[in-house]
Amino acid sequence: MSINTFGHLFRVTTWGESHGPALGATVDGVPPGVEINEAMLQHWLDQRKPGQNKYTTQRREPDAVKILSGVFEGKTTGTSVQLMIENTDQRSKDYSEIAQKFRPGHADITYFQKYGLRDYRGGGRSSARETAARVAAGGLARAALTQLAPGIEITGYMVQMGPRKADPAKYDLAQIPQNPFWCPDADTAEAWAEDLDKLRKSGDSVGAVIEVVARGVPAGLGAPIYGKLDTDLAAAMMSINAVKGVEIGDGMAAACLTGVENADEIQMGPNGPEYSSNHAGGILGGISTGQEVVVRFAVKPTSSILTTRKTITVDGQNTDIITKGRHDPCVGIRAVPVGEAMMACILLDHLLLHRGQIGDAGGKIGG
Amino acid sequence: MSINTFGHLFRVTTWGESHGPALGATVDGVPPGVEINEAMLQHWLDQRKPGQNKYTTQRREPDAVKILSGVFEGKTTGTSVQLMIENTDQRSKDYSEIAQKFRPGHADITYFQKYGLRDYRGGGRSSARETAARVAAGGLARAALTQLAPGIEITGYMVQMGPRKADPAKYDLAQIPQNPFWCPDADTAEAWAEDLDKLRKSGDSVGAVIEVVARGVPAGLGAPIYGKLDTDLAAAMMSINAVKGVEIGDGMAAACLTGVENADEIQMGPNGPEYSSNHAGGILGGISTGQEVVVRFAVKPTSSILTTRKTITVDGQNTDIITKGRHDPCVGIRAVPVGEAMMACILLDHLLLHRGQIGDAGGKIGG
Amino acid sequence: MSINTFGHLFRVTTWGESHGPALGATVDGVPPGVEINEAMLQHWLDQRKPGQNKYTTQRREPDAVKILSGVFEGKTTGTSVQLMIENTDQRSKDYSEIAQKFRPGHADITYFQKYGLRDYRGGGRSSARETAARVAAGGLARAALTQLAPGIEITGYMVQMGPRKADPAKYDLAQIPQNPFWCPDADTAEAWAEDLDKLRKSGDSVGAVIEVVARGVPAGLGAPIYGKLDTDLAAAMMSINAVKGVEIGDGMAAACLTGVENADEIQMGPNGPEYSSNHAGGILGGISTGQEVVVRFAVKPTSSILTTRKTITVDGQNTDIITKGRHDPCVGIRAVPVGEAMMACILLDHLLLHRGQIGDAGGKIGG
Amino acid sequence: MSINTFGHLFRVTTWGESHGPALGATVDGVPPGVEINEAMLQHWLDQRKPGQNKYTTQRREPDAVKILSGVFEGKTTGTSVQLMIENTDQRSKDYSEIAQKFRPGHADITYFQKYGLRDYRGGGRSSARETAARVAAGGLARAALTQLAPGIEITGYMVQMGPRKADPAKYDLAQIPQNPFWCPDADTAEAWAEDLDKLRKSGDSVGAVIEVVARGVPAGLGAPIYGKLDTDLAAAMMSINAVKGVEIGDGMAAACLTGVENADEIQMGPNGPEYSSNHAGGILGGISTGQEVVVRFAVKPTSSILTTRKTITVDGQNTDIITKGRHDPCVGIRAVPVGEAMMACILLDHLLLHRGQIGDAGGKIGG
Repeated sequence: MSINTFGHLFRVTTWGESHGPALGATVDGVPPGVEINEAMLQHWLDQRKPGQNKYTTQRREPDAVKILSGVFEGKTTGTSVQLMIENTDQRSKDYSEIAQKFRPGHADITYFQKYGLRDYRGGGRSSARETAARVAAGGLARAALTQLAPGIEITGYMVQMGPRKADPAKYDLAQIPQNPFWCPDADTAEAWAEDLDKLRKSGDSVGAVIEVVARGVPAGLGAPIYGKLDTDLAAAMMSINAVKGVEIGDGMAAACLTGVENADEIQMGPNGPEYSSNHAGGILGGISTGQEVVVRFAVKPTSSILTTRKTITVDGQNTDIITKGRHDPCVGIRAVPVGEAMMACILLDHLLLHRGQIGDAGGKIGG
Repeated sequence: MSINTFGHLFRVTTWGESHGPALGATVDGVPPGVEINEAMLQHWLDQRKPGQNKYTTQRREPDAVKILSGVFEGKTTGTSVQLMIENTDQRSKDYSEIAQKFRPGHADITYFQKYGLRDYRGGGRSSARETAARVAAGGLARAALTQLAPGIEITGYMVQMGPRKADPAKYDLAQIPQNPFWCPDADTAEAWAEDLDKLRKSGDSVGAVIEVVARGVPAGLGAPIYGKLDTDLAAAMMSINAVKGVEIGDGMAAACLTGVENADEIQMGPNGPEYSSNHAGGILGGISTGQEVVVRFAVKPTSSILTTRKTITVDGQNTDIITKGRHDPCVGIRAVPVGEAMMACILLDHLLLHRGQIGDAGGKIGG
Repeated sequence: MSINTFGHLFRVTTWGESHGPALGATVDGVPPGVEINEAMLQHWLDQRKPGQNKYTTQRREPDAVKILSGVFEGKTTGTSVQLMIENTDQRSKDYSEIAQKFRPGHADITYFQKYGLRDYRGGGRSSARETAARVAAGGLARAALTQLAPGIEITGYMVQMGPRKADPAKYDLAQIPQNPFWCPDADTAEAWAEDLDKLRKSGDSVGAVIEVVARGVPAGLGAPIYGKLDTDLAAAMMSINAVKGVEIGDGMAAACLTGVENADEIQMGPNGPEYSSNHAGGILGGISTGQEVVVRFAVKPTSSILTTRKTITVDGQNTDIITKGRHDPCVGIRAVPVGEAMMACILLDHLLLHRGQIGDAGGKIGG
Repeated sequence: MSINTFGHLFRVTTWGESHGPALGATVDGVPPGVEINEAMLQHWLDQRKPGQNKYTTQRREPDAVKILSGVFEGKTTGTSVQLMIENTDQRSKDYSEIAQKFRPGHADITYFQKYGLRDYRGGGRSSARETAARVAAGGLARAALTQLAPGIEITGYMVQMGPRKADPAKYDLAQIPQNPFWCPDADTAEAWAEDLDKLRKSGDSVGAVIEVVARGVPAGLGAPIYGKLDTDLAAAMMSINAVKGVEIGDGMAAACLTGVENADEIQMGPNGPEYSSNHAGGILGGISTGQEVVVRFAVKPTSSILTTRKTITVDGQNTDIITKGRHDPCVGIRAVPVGEAMMACILLDHLLLHRGQIGDAGGKIGG
């Protein structure tokens, strides 16, 4: 029964608001002996950090992560790890307007309706700043995976912004860090840059689709029926701010296929089963097949826009609002490292869960 | 969610295989005093039951549910409820082929790789028969909702089969039980019938998209950050057999929108806030807005098809397979009552969770 | 531990009332490949079964356990196991008296106050019949332990009945199954027989203390801080009906010791560390030392007695009551196999949990 | 309870080591609108703080607690609360001896065996410093109880030190804060002072028994079967460092009673049921009766003593050790506020859990 926690064995609990003194992640069930330090975590946080380029919020946060517990002489001890990120750019600001008005598309109204009060400074707990804690925890998960399952590689990238999609035929993973959109297709990245410039000038924002792929995941991870690998990935991605849809493999498009088209045929290869295709996204019956695990999620356009929208006040009066301030015109961009972090946490959790229940008793085909 | 259990306070644990003696659901955290009996549950099970029409498997199962605990003199006692469904149509059959070969698209291969052995009779635990237990639990959840939140109505229907989509302009909810596809658009239902007849004759199958809508959900349900209403719905739907994508509100299409288009503007109505639109699918920041909660999910085509596919044996030999037997050509059809059941369980769980943490302390706008 | 479930990875959810159609245990997280059948479970249930001798209730229940799921061809499949025991001796009886009156010492009054209604037939869910489900689950846990950690032996016995204690100097484990009290000291068993005959004739009952010892538990099991091995054992034993105290090692008597007396000194032996004594009961910091794990718990006297006691009715009227019927004069006797079962479940759970988080990374002294 | 977390709805996760930069508690499921500030929490932490008198360790820690999240304008927001306590007195010290040797009675050896490495500075995670985080969380729980169930009062005190017990006939709750032992019997407190002076001079330590009583607990709290109020209290108390036994009501002594003696007879009083006695400790069938909830736990003598004991090194060599340093001769003294804190957390958790599942549907006797 848990609200601010996810995971079965590797359990991440996050805390903190956008304008409080700090935020962080309490991480439980960490395997002992994992080599980790703050610089290793910072590497991932820097990817998500605001103010990286003109397409992300100009809030200036170093997002420096501190390890407060669970690590001794450069290794995890197996006890709970506390990762803290202090908020430094809490610029003094007049919050009186958003304290009284609910911003459309934001959780202002529902937090008030649920809790009877809310921290109205910059979204409080519902702010996407919370995802910094996930990226920190994900960094720890990656370090553990590096030791326990060194073959796993996790890569996230943006595949769609507004109606414009990247072209899989042009994908070059080396391009991903070369453009501000984490886009594997350089041409599309250029087009997006133009699209976004226009949108920003018009005081508007836009949605996006992110894809996260994990290679080298061993077959057998996932715990049916309600702890399926895809179930946990769906929950993990849907829990990210502004996400409205999650797909595994062919996703919603699977509806259009026939069974003949959809069948990923199997043949024996030198290192085990090989599949003719990967419509399934690397998961059958909630358990990994050994193929690439492929997840996509859609991020809605940033709700904070410089266009007037109708809304109401806490007192129930009709009014309107423009959300000024430092906002990403495409919040999806910064969701890329977050999606990668969630993938890392879920994979590590299932690796531990599998080891716990099954040990070495899994089946070897042809063995 | 933990392996065979889902839910925070209202917790459902399912058990049973397709060809074992029985299957069922152990339901914990049930509110006491809920009027319930086997006939009330059977109503929902009959909707999912196989053999209803020519588009669903001809396996003949009465799917008669028995209440073995937690109910006394027609009311829930607040203790754990056991709902059991005996398997009666376990026709003696030669399983030697599927015992040795892995059916593409099925969990045969991953269950073997995970567990080192598997119940190969008809899918065992990975069979969609497991969803009967969910429907039974969902019936109990609905009965509780009727008493605790009588305004809630849950309606599921099919909106797409293969590439053909139902037309929202023609939706008439009264049509849903009038056709074998739970389709609110009678014309599309007719077209689907023709489509499916053709597919069946060609030994093929097809995917589908299901939409489940909950009306009358009070504002304030959902528990950020990792127990968001949409997070739990995404997990719930993704856990259903063959589901490959889940959407809330505009879902994946949210990526195509601008912030101006996507904003659900708010105005004060006689009974509280009213929204100009519902791109959000009734959920902001993981918490219900009071609008319709809208979830969609894609079901891949049935993997059991009468067309030969390449596969391998347990021994690692290449071979091929035709999956004979009694199979739904569009397994999505029978996912409709399952999706409704999951929605009911998740809503009840969040209703109890909200009552536990918040009680009456929620905020009243204009109050 | 959550309501009707206990365990972290090996999770047991029980269901059922004393006078409903059946009761049972839904067991999740079972390692695959464990050899098990109904006869193996029945062996343990027969030890707890009522009507074994004149000191236990004369209710005649075969307590025949059925495996409904999760086992295929004599082995666990790794999916959820359902263990069901049908109630057969639900003799038609006039419950009108206990329906209206609350029996002192029983949960009648608190169940009514909590739930607003209750199954008043023989205690309903609060009946000690629920422990049959634990014994069944414990049998499955033992079978798994036999395969995963073959050196573990679990032995329970009664060490005190009323004020009379067994004499550790006379303990002979071979005596345990030779007397109706599971007493390792034959002389005390004889004295208890006389004591209990007198009590029964006077319409009275008496309490007891049970000790459960696990030998061969590897060092390193237990998950600090809130999943300590002793924490989980304390919860497990306290959850048994009528238990009022739990001790690990020296237990409450540890308060009387000085630090010098209490220190279990350590020396290196041929197979690892050896301890000069075991005041700690085999657990330090919540983690097993490799010594015997020693737990004791006190069971209060049976509350159903043939002596009139003052009570009240549901309507709030003063009255009195004699609890007639078939009752154990010392309910502690039948708690012995229950305590063993709980020990088995907790040890298996921690074995899996340790394997999941730590794998082979534990420390070897002198290695 | 799962590893570093306890609680069902009100969930406390602690983190931190004795000699790391900080420790704390991440608290989830907090009801919104609870008035709280750091001074209110500090009040309780000051009670547990070391260096209060000559009977507690002379380590000088201000134990100043900071609220880092979940509180806005003096009220809880319903989101996760982070309570952090920085370690300030980490005096530079030579740990080379205890890095290589295992201190008998401490968790040094088991942590090493479990995790393969350990933070050897002052016990690391197994240090009783972790209980500061519990006291902070308990302070928050008390504030919530004050608003939700204002009649509840929680009082802890020491009832036994070594073999000398306080005399219930002389109990005066006003005496508790008047002596360094939290003893309600002033005469015994004086005798203990003499006892402890002698023990300290001889380089020895001693055990203790603590009793915690909660008055004003409404009838109906507790969630059978595995979330019983007494089950959760047993786990909560057993999880405190050095605790070896837990008792509810008469506890282990219940074994000596007959059923006639043990029966708490019931009569109707002006405000509901009244009981002739409280052998049950205010809990029947795991659910509160409305009487005082009475828990006792035994704390073993401090293992760090100035007397040489035999032990081994990490390399498996026999050696001996004296544990110098600043240690409480009776660690039980400082367990009093910890026991109170755990009681507060468990009661609040069950209050929320009851409200969630049952709401107002509980039974009224005579109503």
